[in-house]
Amino acid sequence: MGKTALMKRYSRRDESDPARSCTENVELGGLADLIGYALKRTQLAVYQDFQRTFSDLNVRPVQYALISVIGCNPGLKQSQLGAALEIKRANIVSLLDELEERNLAIRSPVAADRRSYALHLTEKGMELLEKLQERSVEEEKRLASRIGQKGREQLLTLLREVRETADQLNQ
Amino acid sequence: MGKTALMKRYSRRDESDPARSCTENVELGGLADLIGYALKRTQLAVYQDFQRTFSDLNVRPVQYALISVIGCNPGLKQSQLGAALEIKRANIVSLLDELEERNLAIRSPVAADRRSYALHLTEKGMELLEKLQERSVEEEKRLASRIGQKGREQLLTLLREVRETADQLNQ
Repeated sequence: MGKTALMKRYSRRDESDPARSCTENVELGGLADLIGYALKRTQLAVYQDFQRTFSDLNVRPVQYALISVIGCNPGLKQSQLGAALEIKRANIVSLLDELEERNLAIRSPVAADRRSYALHLTEKGMELLEKLQERSVEEEKRLASRIGQKGREQLLTLLREVRETADQLNQ
Repeated sequence: MGKTALMKRYSRRDESDPARSCTENVELGGLADLIGYALKRTQLAVYQDFQRTFSDLNVRPVQYALISVIGCNPGLKQSQLGAALEIKRANIVSLLDELEERNLAIRSPVAADRRSYALHLTEKGMELLEKLQERSVEEEKRLASRIGQKGREQLLTLLREVRETADQLNQ
């Protein structure tokens, strides 16, 4: 799509679909039609929903991710966890400290490598993971209530494809 | 979709679609199938692409958003800008300070309201906006190179619907 076509779409945006505009009198100047901006705004809204859904369990999205990956890969190393979630080493260390303090996960030394640790969930961690997964299924249903299961799968596919495209561009 | 069905999809994920897994040997434990996690990872990858695309112009995504909305709504008030972009007052103030220091935007007092400012882009700001929009069109094309124009429109629609659903849940 050329610039002119894109601009044209922007200019008729408000008449055709008022929901795309953020506040009634302010034009977003095409932002709402940019993948990056749409991703950011949707991500923030979903993040808030997550926070509300899991607040009584005192679990932030990043902690959910850690617990989920450790639970699914018992014995994995700290470095593998960081790579899988693309979290920097320093941050992984403090996040794991927090999980250990709450008695949700443990680090055990690896015989073959003194500098490395194998990660496992504790029993308490496994119980929490089960609760998180149950609620997560409910949260997904709620979030997809308008787009439906087919829309949800389309969305996940499109997101994966855009991410892979961006990852290639970023290399 | 019930929990069992979701789990079943997770467990066969790696065989059916290895691209969904983050690293070869680590299972993401269903994270890749969660809207929130998929949004976050895609958003980060697209954010990196944006940073690279606009780095020589010294413009971050949030600055792009500000310039774009001010350019599209000359004379709008600081509070309207903050509401449209859902940026807190304190942050809007320091972001606008930055734009003023770079001679990209100006705040003028509003006659009717001493505490309010009307925002405009300077000539330099308007020139920058034009450059940003041109590049942005190119960036969108690159990001959508795999999903195509139709996929891009589907993605924007699905994101908007999920965001509206989440916004309602968050109210």
